[in-house]
Amino acid sequence: MKLYKNERIDRLYSNEVQIIQSAEVFSFSLDAVLLAYFTSALQKEKGILVDLCAGNGAVGLFLTKKVAGQIIEVEVQERLADMARRSIELNNLGDRVQMLNIDLDKAIEFIKKDSVDIVTCNPPYFSNLPTSKKNSNPYLAIARHEISVNLERIIEVTSDLLKMNGKAYFVHRPERTAEIFELMRKHRLAPKKVQLVHPKEEKEANMILIEAIKDGRPNGVRFMPAIVVYNDSGEYTPLLREILYGKSE
Amino acid sequence: MKLYKNERIDRLYSNEVQIIQSAEVFSFSLDAVLLAYFTSALQKEKGILVDLCAGNGAVGLFLTKKVAGQIIEVEVQERLADMARRSIELNNLGDRVQMLNIDLDKAIEFIKKDSVDIVTCNPPYFSNLPTSKKNSNPYLAIARHEISVNLERIIEVTSDLLKMNGKAYFVHRPERTAEIFELMRKHRLAPKKVQLVHPKEEKEANMILIEAIKDGRPNGVRFMPAIVVYNDSGEYTPLLREILYGKSE
Repeated sequence: MKLYKNERIDRLYSNEVQIIQSAEVFSFSLDAVLLAYFTSALQKEKGILVDLCAGNGAVGLFLTKKVAGQIIEVEVQERLADMARRSIELNNLGDRVQMLNIDLDKAIEFIKKDSVDIVTCNPPYFSNLPTSKKNSNPYLAIARHEISVNLERIIEVTSDLLKMNGKAYFVHRPERTAEIFELMRKHRLAPKKVQLVHPKEEKEANMILIEAIKDGRPNGVRFMPAIVVYNDSGEYTPLLREILYGKSE
Repeated sequence: MKLYKNERIDRLYSNEVQIIQSAEVFSFSLDAVLLAYFTSALQKEKGILVDLCAGNGAVGLFLTKKVAGQIIEVEVQERLADMARRSIELNNLGDRVQMLNIDLDKAIEFIKKDSVDIVTCNPPYFSNLPTSKKNSNPYLAIARHEISVNLERIIEVTSDLLKMNGKAYFVHRPERTAEIFELMRKHRLAPKKVQLVHPKEEKEANMILIEAIKDGRPNGVRFMPAIVVYNDSGEYTPLLREILYGKSE
């Protein structure tokens, strides 16, 4: 497997997949791990899961353990898509996972409308305002700020791709919750389940996980038990250890 | 103090106020206690706090410890308003707390528009649909179902009453969160702070506390540490004990 300068191979220990990472280009973080944890299993062999804003493909690869069918990763940045392709090869998953290196706007030209069972997305978190302080590294700037795509467009494409009663899973920043709920409703997605992630029990949440159902009945959102990442001594909580390292025997 | 049949006097131990309660008519529950806990202090002597859907006036009375100025309770049901008035008298708070036994729609005729610092509300939680199963006790039915008022009207009146940058505090059911956020935005209230209440750590939330600011900047909602009511052995958590019984010396 060819690795470029400053690339490394990381493993998620609770899983068996290996992921090519690069601090300079893109590396997955806890957000991606928790998004995969939060996403429902899809046991149908003909099922299709699409991961939008896929980055180096970590979410899609994590989900190979939960999804029996096809996984399609969509990423606009060529350098990142290339990392994802090599990770797919590294794990011998080429028969089930593919990477589309396309603009999200074009997803509907490559994937049939109303055909997808699950869409996952770990989108850029920050609005691209004239005043936004963006990373000088263009790979990271595009991954973090809404430069090549914005939240409404992501939600619209998600809704277009999903079949009726298909499920969307998003990870985002809590401060954008009201906006996400409103855009989802506008585009036929009903938020159904939310899980907040708190770095410590007594800290406010710094991540939100949202499940929405296409054409679902509105106003049924449930807030699941909060996920707490670290205990008071700064160690991972039992739940996090299980998510990251797997169930201890 | 005159007590009617089946009325009793309850105390919140962390507080000194006494509240006339009746299982048959209305009695406050944890929702009211947590709403008062979640509400910011208002130290200005000329400050005004209005409690809508006040029931037997528990929230307003709890808040006398945090509010230096006037507290106005608004309740449409005469029997409940009468309980609240007797509780105000019982606590000798007639100079600071008053009960308006009026329809919420008329609040603006009695309280100046854009004049209020804080509005609190523990509204009826359930929509009044033709299919809704309502309590056969009319007092309880009106307190629980949107019979005499609905959520949008409450939010509209709240916004009308508040001065610019005034704060609204609501307690509600989590499943209506998306609707609440949307109605708030429609009526110039920006949700700013949310706190979920979970009966146990591993259970989903059964209450949501929301702070909103009139004419506040949208999309800044923060999710504070979750409130957990009972520990695994079914005893109140330390936070709940403090809220209910006060700080132990």
